[in-house]
Amino acid sequence: MDTICALATAPGGALGIIRISGPQTLEILSHVFSKDLTQAQPNTIHYGHIADKPSSISHHPSDIIDEVLVSVFRAPHSYTGEDSAEISCHGSRYILNKVLELLIQHGCRMANPGEYTQRAFLNGKMDLSQAEAVADLIASSNKATHQIAISQLRGHFSSELSRLREQLLKLTSLLELELDFSDHEDLEFADRSELLDIANKINNQITALAHSFETGKTLKEGFPVAIVGRTNVGKSTLLNKLLRDDRAIVSPVHGTTRDTIEDTIDINGVTFRFIDTAGIRQTTDEVEQIGINRTYTAIGKARIVLWIVDAEPTTEYIQEMLERCKDKSLIIIRNKIDIQAMSDTFSISNSRLKDFPTVEISAKQGTNIDKLEQAIFASANIPELSEQCIIVTSARQYHSLVSAHNNLSRVLSGLESGLSGDIVSEDLRLVLDDLADITGQGRILTSEVLENIFTHFCVGK
Amino acid sequence: MDTICALATAPGGALGIIRISGPQTLEILSHVFSKDLTQAQPNTIHYGHIADKPSSISHHPSDIIDEVLVSVFRAPHSYTGEDSAEISCHGSRYILNKVLELLIQHGCRMANPGEYTQRAFLNGKMDLSQAEAVADLIASSNKATHQIAISQLRGHFSSELSRLREQLLKLTSLLELELDFSDHEDLEFADRSELLDIANKINNQITALAHSFETGKTLKEGFPVAIVGRTNVGKSTLLNKLLRDDRAIVSPVHGTTRDTIEDTIDINGVTFRFIDTAGIRQTTDEVEQIGINRTYTAIGKARIVLWIVDAEPTTEYIQEMLERCKDKSLIIIRNKIDIQAMSDTFSISNSRLKDFPTVEISAKQGTNIDKLEQAIFASANIPELSEQCIIVTSARQYHSLVSAHNNLSRVLSGLESGLSGDIVSEDLRLVLDDLADITGQGRILTSEVLENIFTHFCVGK
Repeated sequence: MDTICALATAPGGALGIIRISGPQTLEILSHVFSKDLTQAQPNTIHYGHIADKPSSISHHPSDIIDEVLVSVFRAPHSYTGEDSAEISCHGSRYILNKVLELLIQHGCRMANPGEYTQRAFLNGKMDLSQAEAVADLIASSNKATHQIAISQLRGHFSSELSRLREQLLKLTSLLELELDFSDHEDLEFADRSELLDIANKINNQITALAHSFETGKTLKEGFPVAIVGRTNVGKSTLLNKLLRDDRAIVSPVHGTTRDTIEDTIDINGVTFRFIDTAGIRQTTDEVEQIGINRTYTAIGKARIVLWIVDAEPTTEYIQEMLERCKDKSLIIIRNKIDIQAMSDTFSISNSRLKDFPTVEISAKQGTNIDKLEQAIFASANIPELSEQCIIVTSARQYHSLVSAHNNLSRVLSGLESGLSGDIVSEDLRLVLDDLADITGQGRILTSEVLENIFTHFCVGK
Repeated sequence: MDTICALATAPGGALGIIRISGPQTLEILSHVFSKDLTQAQPNTIHYGHIADKPSSISHHPSDIIDEVLVSVFRAPHSYTGEDSAEISCHGSRYILNKVLELLIQHGCRMANPGEYTQRAFLNGKMDLSQAEAVADLIASSNKATHQIAISQLRGHFSSELSRLREQLLKLTSLLELELDFSDHEDLEFADRSELLDIANKINNQITALAHSFETGKTLKEGFPVAIVGRTNVGKSTLLNKLLRDDRAIVSPVHGTTRDTIEDTIDINGVTFRFIDTAGIRQTTDEVEQIGINRTYTAIGKARIVLWIVDAEPTTEYIQEMLERCKDKSLIIIRNKIDIQAMSDTFSISNSRLKDFPTVEISAKQGTNIDKLEQAIFASANIPELSEQCIIVTSARQYHSLVSAHNNLSRVLSGLESGLSGDIVSEDLRLVLDDLADITGQGRILTSEVLENIFTHFCVGK
């Protein structure tokens, strides 16, 4: 097994951490660090310097790259399960590159993306669903994505899968019992209602998990929201107001939000992503049909549509909007309440709009923006995440769940149609394999599968 | 003393390190970490989780912010000299902010820029010149700036200053001896040649240190180089060739160079900064005098001038250039040797240009670019940095050295003119104070002085 090294922190801070992992870790370190750590106790920290010519006892300052702290971890009690170390350097890119170069000269290899976590998986420190949660955790940018990732990292999804596995094994043993006794026609074992009961229950659980992927995916990417309405109805003013309010939630760390996230806001720890509707025009004029079409494209991508009106919409307009939004959450916004008394100029009288949530705001003055945010959050219909929430966020896991569901459906129809137990058992085994694929446990995984999972990681994790 | 916390790494990596320092470190940690570390051994690492509600024994996953490693350091054997700790978290900004919030809730305060290093200084872990070297080391981007900073961090400048201090103290005691015996006119102590010798030697050393600041400043900022010559002589082609070659030296870490450094190249570990001469024209046409003036402005800012010619320059042109470059290092570049045989179309015959280094290149084909780089490096006349190089890079230190030099000059003229020993001693004391200002040792520093030094640091160091 190679010994690998990588920068584990972003360059540019006060400190930079270089991670080393593999059987040669402490030996390679002895060539570059001022102290011999080959006999170092696990989980200890050592102060010294990294130098270019480690054989000489005292170094010229020109040979010394940095004064550092080295943390020593011993197999199997490390992140990767291997001997490993972390070098805490001054955060200069020059220094970090020099230290990496030196480690490579003495036998390390640059780590691939996610290779530390891959090794942790291969050494049984975590299963695949937990490994995927590590990447999600690093990428988590709000309460919702963080909670899902930490719950998965801490094994709640894995436990759920092992519970399902136990039930499937019970089903298998009951089927085997049926087979064993199938020769004895006097024994009434052909009643499969109990088996069907169990299988149905498992299938419901698997289906629920698979369904959670839609939520998981949307939470990761941000709920798409379109703000639509006529040109001077106040769309941009509202968007700016929503975004500015978000920016006011400033974190204590410099430069956190603005440079990576554009046009999103967090409401109650969930990200909402505003689809760019700049230049979109809403009109009943036939000549501007292109503009209308663009609006509808934006609506098509959204899960929530904020429809801003400042006058009673025409019947055709309502007809068109309801048609387009029929699988969306629609919120009607009456803007400009600062210049129009609510009951004044117009009130929405069309009965077809009565059942939709309606919020009266003044985008300009910021009135009721908080109410609107809560209406948006309610429209997203996000499940309670405070407990041991299991929400699937990985497409790979989702596909395994769908496959498990399909195979289990065949089990169900086999049981119902009186198919022989050994044929049903075949399909049951496939369901077990599908679930095992999610955690990777007891499965032989191709390097292609592993690569697909870990290339999405950053280098150094 | 407050207990402070800050993010010590740049956000965005696989890992993020939060530093805590101060007397309450371990107590505050016991409120947020899953293990009690108040009795933890120094220099040990502890695995556990950071949670929102630490009082309950088992945490809901929603309360858990991250699974982390905590490194424990004990006073006085820590960077700051105080009890301190580092929390190694997953590098999510959300997580890092949450952990910082939690620490602040339990009694930490956000650290000011450089506050850890300031505490290290106040606790006698390093002197001021070393503290300033920490910031330089983090900012170092090439071999030269790195070597100067690491040498200073490791105390070579401090040792030099303490040697000077010893010599000054010797001078003082000799002067006192002279005072003690001044009543006894039979003792021939009035011969001050030995004192003058010592004082002169010290002054030379201080002057050399002060002079090194020019080099230090230029090494930090990069040597300014102007490429001048007529419009189609190949200036841009050469600049691109020089810059592209540099980009080819790719570091193993992603995104290291291009995003921070523009139009600079490193030659033998030293940065050369090209002054933007875009749009500058060189002509003998009087109408374009404005263009010529721009060229001369660029030359004025440069320390090295690359003068590209592709034909024999006129006598007036030569006259003008030599006048403008008289305090610069001038390199004459004969470009386009790919289309003109060297001895062919022209050779520089003017004897006034014979003594300047001349390089024949083809910017287009990249011929002799390496030779040109070595000529540039040689022109910079950089002192040998391989040994225990002492090069002053701080304006604060420079001003103290200049003040020491001025005070010592008064000592010298006092000794020469036979001024009484007690008056000379006064000035000597000022020299000692000036040198003590550099390291800050034995001096009472105002908070303003400290603030000036440490605000240039990044937060977290």
